Amino acid sequence: MPANRYLEDLQVGEKIQTAAVPITEEEILEFSRRYDPQPMHADPQVPGGLIASGWHTAAIVMRLTVDSNPLGSLPLLGLGVDGIQWPLPVRPGDTIQVEMEVLDIRPSKSQPTHGIVKIRSTARNQHGEVVYVVIPNCWVPRRPA
Amino acid sequence: MPANRYLEDLQVGEKIQTAAVPITEEEILEFSRRYDPQPMHADPQVPGGLIASGWHTAAIVMRLTVDSNPLGSLPLLGLGVDGIQWPLPVRPGDTIQVEMEVLDIRPSKSQPTHGIVKIRSTARNQHGEVVYVVIPNCWVPRRPA
Repeated sequence: MPANRYLEDLQVGEKIQTAAVPITEEEILEFSRRYDPQPMHADPQVPGGLIASGWHTAAIVMRLTVDSNPLGSLPLLGLGVDGIQWPLPVRPGDTIQVEMEVLDIRPSKSQPTHGIVKIRSTARNQHGEVVYVVIPNCWVPRRPA
Repeated sequence: MPANRYLEDLQVGEKIQTAAVPITEEEILEFSRRYDPQPMHADPQVPGGLIASGWHTAAIVMRLTVDSNPLGSLPLLGLGVDGIQWPLPVRPGDTIQVEMEVLDIRPSKSQPTHGIVKIRSTARNQHGEVVYVVIPNCWVPRRPA
């Protein structure tokens, strides 16, 4: 586990790359049948071919983010998201990798122990095509005095 | 299955209520261990009590939305999201229900067969407290001529 990284340790413009993960048909079907059971996500014989639920892609990107320990052992807690885009579908056999970029850092006005860090996470497939962009606002502890 | 509802059948301001669904500890743990394995989401003994991953809440809201068939058998396809908020945690034993409101309807400039519908979906717990708000932009077919 890398050292904890507090608000003061982050820099606007810094980038973090996650590992890459392959997406299987089995996983797409399992997620979709539970949470997004539409034919395009849950029927392997659908015309045009199976595509992952956008919320599955979002969950996979969260897992890649957590596993990359960007704050060490500090929690990754999202207050909200400024936007999401799914420009291209994710299909079985695709491999997804995420790059996070710090867009903004500001101390909290209400809680002096924390700050808010705006990130842009961009997920690309094995062809380098962008399949998902999310801009979360994260609640990050300040370094204890 | 209700009748198909095309772009021309929707109205700004209309609201649709989904069913309500209880959230179990088992389901929270299962999702979190796969997609967001942080102690607050994946350890039932965590101080302060277990809370659902925000992405789990997003997935549950998608399932409630799909099951409510707001467009009949037409697909629910999101181009993106204008924003997400998680104002309060979702905990084991909570029951979640979603209200969708149509915010905006416009024909696509690039594809005359479709339009874009902006929705605000608000998820509340059994106390009526808002736990999740998402504003998706959906890709909706126009009524065939």
